[in-house]
Amino acid sequence: MARGCAVLGTGGGGDVRTGVLAAKGAIRAYGPVPLVRLDTLPGDALILPLSGIGAPTVGHEMIHSEEEPKRIAEEVERLFGRPPSAIMSAEIGGENGVSPVAWAARLGLPLLDADGMGRAFPEVQMVSMYVAGLPADVVVMSDVAGNVVTIRPVDGLWSERLARAVCVASGSHALMADYILTAERAHGAVIEGTVTRALSIGRATEGAADPLRALTAELGAARLITGKLTDVERRTTGGFVRGSATIEGTGADRGRTLRLELQNENLVALEGGRVRAVVPDLITVVDTETAGAVQTEALRYGQRVTVLAWACDPLWRTAKGLETAGPSAFGYTHEYVPVEELETAGASAFGHDSVPVEELEGRG
Amino acid sequence: MARGCAVLGTGGGGDVRTGVLAAKGAIRAYGPVPLVRLDTLPGDALILPLSGIGAPTVGHEMIHSEEEPKRIAEEVERLFGRPPSAIMSAEIGGENGVSPVAWAARLGLPLLDADGMGRAFPEVQMVSMYVAGLPADVVVMSDVAGNVVTIRPVDGLWSERLARAVCVASGSHALMADYILTAERAHGAVIEGTVTRALSIGRATEGAADPLRALTAELGAARLITGKLTDVERRTTGGFVRGSATIEGTGADRGRTLRLELQNENLVALEGGRVRAVVPDLITVVDTETAGAVQTEALRYGQRVTVLAWACDPLWRTAKGLETAGPSAFGYTHEYVPVEELETAGASAFGHDSVPVEELEGRG
Repeated sequence: MARGCAVLGTGGGGDVRTGVLAAKGAIRAYGPVPLVRLDTLPGDALILPLSGIGAPTVGHEMIHSEEEPKRIAEEVERLFGRPPSAIMSAEIGGENGVSPVAWAARLGLPLLDADGMGRAFPEVQMVSMYVAGLPADVVVMSDVAGNVVTIRPVDGLWSERLARAVCVASGSHALMADYILTAERAHGAVIEGTVTRALSIGRATEGAADPLRALTAELGAARLITGKLTDVERRTTGGFVRGSATIEGTGADRGRTLRLELQNENLVALEGGRVRAVVPDLITVVDTETAGAVQTEALRYGQRVTVLAWACDPLWRTAKGLETAGPSAFGYTHEYVPVEELETAGASAFGHDSVPVEELEGRG
Repeated sequence: MARGCAVLGTGGGGDVRTGVLAAKGAIRAYGPVPLVRLDTLPGDALILPLSGIGAPTVGHEMIHSEEEPKRIAEEVERLFGRPPSAIMSAEIGGENGVSPVAWAARLGLPLLDADGMGRAFPEVQMVSMYVAGLPADVVVMSDVAGNVVTIRPVDGLWSERLARAVCVASGSHALMADYILTAERAHGAVIEGTVTRALSIGRATEGAADPLRALTAELGAARLITGKLTDVERRTTGGFVRGSATIEGTGADRGRTLRLELQNENLVALEGGRVRAVVPDLITVVDTETAGAVQTEALRYGQRVTVLAWACDPLWRTAKGLETAGPSAFGYTHEYVPVEELETAGASAFGHDSVPVEELEGRG
């Protein structure tokens, strides 16, 4: 699952290793976590979407306290008059995909097989619940120091602004519940099956003879380049990691250069001024040998990597989805073109490893 | 009352004129506000201390929405299971001393004749309730946009840190309730009679033949210097106004120079390297002609001003009081010496206008 969450993290979402340690520890202490499907929950069951918020470079150093989920669940029970019935990952990509296992174990609650992104995104309002038009009624945050903050924002953008400010004041890392919702309202407003998908990715690649090929097939991904990391620029500012990475092709890709633009996640892949893939489609850097995802904060000069790109959940391709998490939401002027169309247009240039369009569309 | 609040504002606390406009408007719309003494409230009556938080230079431009106190009162009723019985000014100095009249009118509640400072202070934890050891259980904030944020901080310093972050994110101005308390717990934990004191200051000076002499007598203040503002340095940073002001003596004070250090309020008065008065004692710059207080953000080159200093409430002179709001709390290394002792030590140098020590001590 951790391998899958890292791949779905598109470079961000926090360090999965931290999440794995926390999950293993919590399962040992509190017992295993059942995975439940949305359609098995009663309509009025309260789902608690949880995620870490902050700069992954800080998350590295500062792990969540065991008390944070408990404080949030207590505040939620106070606010809603009943306890939550299940934990949901707000973001399946990266640490936020794995850590909910720990939080669910700590609270003795099942984990919902769903999340709010189907990937990782850097901002609070970039969740399927927002795109589906659910109100951002209330956000509950807790930090390592033990502070609990409840935000009733007027909209999703204020939610992001205030939550980010609280997060930075708390040391750029906090645990957050937002879009707390009933099972009834969750239908069509969450991305289902993503925990299962993360598990499948892990199972498909772990121990495979050719992990990169296995991963590419499992994802239905296009291979944008295989090469060497030659330049990485990264800075932590305002609770985000921003920067860029350059990959120079090797082997069959010699002579080609791919540039990634980052804001916690990989947002745009450019080749010679041409967009190869752009957010909200998924772009992930993996180790060419092991097919393990290389997160933004682990990018290092000289690494041998392959960049994969594949289609996001259809929800992100709606007008509201693109407005929320498309190129313009990150300040880019590029028009959004689905990765499978970009690949078709430039297919002849990219050789035999490109994934057939039909297969990509089949997953769309 | 507004004149009194401005004087007690020690240079900060926001623009009283904004508060006066709001108070007049609210009284017209919702009726007059009764002033109540703490000992007339039942023990379980909920007191709602309210204050604006933010940089006064921004408060100038951005006035509180009429809905802010209502949103806070609703959230408090949700959290405490009953509505508040009275409004209290968290800070009698400046706009925060006057505006509660508007907030009380808007909510149809009486105003308590007390506050949490007996003056103005720039930071959230610098209140008598904190010094008295009451827990900073919960802080409720509301901003002009309509957001409501509830903070359950682990201590007063976290309360300040998180509230300040939310305030800055909200545009450096928000309305805040903290140390919400019952009348029973308020005894000894609030500074009583301060609304009445602000009213007395206004009555003593308004229309007086010699307003400066009337004010000095009413306050029991020492006159530090009378002169001309020759240098003002001010910047708004991190939600605060910081800087300094220099006053060169005129008339009997010719040849002397007083320097004020500011952080929203006047914190230290220095003359030739010697401390003349230091926080938590009150230091206020007034117009020499009218005795009207000149707030930090209104200090201008060439103004003819007099600087007054007088004793703070005894609560601020306790060990916990000085730790909370003494010189070291603002990063100064000066040891705290009560203003009346400083005046005695240097009395011969400051001539006939110095107030006799006995009178100062009588007010201490």
